[in-house]
Amino acid sequence: MTAQAFVPAHVTAFFSVERRETPAASGARGGGIALADGVEVTVEDGTGVVLEGEETELEAVTRVLSALDVTAAVRIETDLPLASGFGLSGAAALGTALAANRAFELGRTENELVTVAHVADLQAGTGLGDVVAQAHGGVPVRLAPGAPDHNRLDAIPAVGQVEVLPLGTVATEGVLADDTDPLSAAGQAALEQLMQRPTLPHLMRVGRAFAEETDLLVGDLRAVIDAVEAAGGLACVGLLGRTVVALDDGLSAAGYDPRVTRIDPGGARLLDRP
Amino acid sequence: MTAQAFVPAHVTAFFSVERRETPAASGARGGGIALADGVEVTVEDGTGVVLEGEETELEAVTRVLSALDVTAAVRIETDLPLASGFGLSGAAALGTALAANRAFELGRTENELVTVAHVADLQAGTGLGDVVAQAHGGVPVRLAPGAPDHNRLDAIPAVGQVEVLPLGTVATEGVLADDTDPLSAAGQAALEQLMQRPTLPHLMRVGRAFAEETDLLVGDLRAVIDAVEAAGGLACVGLLGRTVVALDDGLSAAGYDPRVTRIDPGGARLLDRP
Repeated sequence: MTAQAFVPAHVTAFFSVERRETPAASGARGGGIALADGVEVTVEDGTGVVLEGEETELEAVTRVLSALDVTAAVRIETDLPLASGFGLSGAAALGTALAANRAFELGRTENELVTVAHVADLQAGTGLGDVVAQAHGGVPVRLAPGAPDHNRLDAIPAVGQVEVLPLGTVATEGVLADDTDPLSAAGQAALEQLMQRPTLPHLMRVGRAFAEETDLLVGDLRAVIDAVEAAGGLACVGLLGRTVVALDDGLSAAGYDPRVTRIDPGGARLLDRP
Repeated sequence: MTAQAFVPAHVTAFFSVERRETPAASGARGGGIALADGVEVTVEDGTGVVLEGEETELEAVTRVLSALDVTAAVRIETDLPLASGFGLSGAAALGTALAANRAFELGRTENELVTVAHVADLQAGTGLGDVVAQAHGGVPVRLAPGAPDHNRLDAIPAVGQVEVLPLGTVATEGVLADDTDPLSAAGQAALEQLMQRPTLPHLMRVGRAFAEETDLLVGDLRAVIDAVEAAGGLACVGLLGRTVVALDDGLSAAGYDPRVTRIDPGGARLLDRP
């Protein structure tokens, strides 16, 4: 009675907040990149949530267990920092759903498990649309919000190196408690711009402009992105976070010491280990 | 100006033929397994289609190039046999679309490329719904037919070993030229049965019953599947083909010498090589 899943981190270049009648129909539109770095979740008999060896509370994870009506011990391992725009709450929720379904032979489909994790992340207030992007992998574009029965996804076909530089934390709940109408208007405009030229470089440019316009280019973020661009690279902010995301060796080439990762090709998946 | 893509093979356990107004809306419902074995497609400047070192004609591939309005040399490598129910025509078409988009910077989205390949496979008469399953990976369930703007997909979350034993070829065009109404009625009933218990073992049982009911359990297929079951395993036919597909070591355990592969976790993807 043990199972493991990997779920990619997801950095959001731009987004709009889309509130609907139900959590399953709500979420975000937007574009981002799923990363080959992410979380590994182990689900087994027992109780409690352990993150990197420390007992912790993760509302999105406990909500998933409750929605699936199981009691389990959940162990989460990741090399990435929490609350930095990597969508790790959603990743932990989705990994828990996938691994619990296997460990306890729940017989749920992929769409059902993604829906459970999406709703849990929304209700915990820790994410809006990372889960469906993480289930897809690659460079997902969320054309319509919500869980699989509601949303519409496309993607930019892309492969290659990505560098990330976390510069501090942002609480998702804080930004989303404000009036999100101006942010969402900017996000919907950004989506239209991206789909006119759906390429990875254009995603970075649209993302940078979105962060600028919505006053999310805070602290050191602007200086670092400018430095990447001055060195010939392309970068944007991983929202909602204070993480700079650059294509290829954009951050290294500008003299920073980033975490080097890649575009995740295939999205969340069960792991098969003895 | 060169790019490469990998596309998983896809074995179909059961299906219904779904004809609609347009090729993009047409296709199949059904369930199957995407395999870690598949095709690698290289697209570069030049002309001609080369399969395993031999100049060849592959209508689905030339239709993709034509739809994308490019002239290119396409090289296809695979360890699997053609016309044996692995969906290799669709895989070659999708790999060509993904690699050509990258090699020639066409700026198409994933959904657009999947649509181009899906339509090419249908129009060539070589497949009905493998392409969308191959784009998804895993154990895809096609709830509604057609390309991404039309279809509805779910999946059975699963991981593990799969064994395949090709016993001969079947021309897709031949079976689909007959009256497909009885076959499609059986396929739709099979889909309902699967979704009542969406697990990998149940997929195999539903698939076996479908092949039996539709008279596709021809030649040695029945004897081999019976032998796998007698040895405690589960197997079905990879349609439309004469290939036996078994979970885990089902064929080896019954004394056969199968090709050993795995469930592909993430679907079609670009490869990143120098």
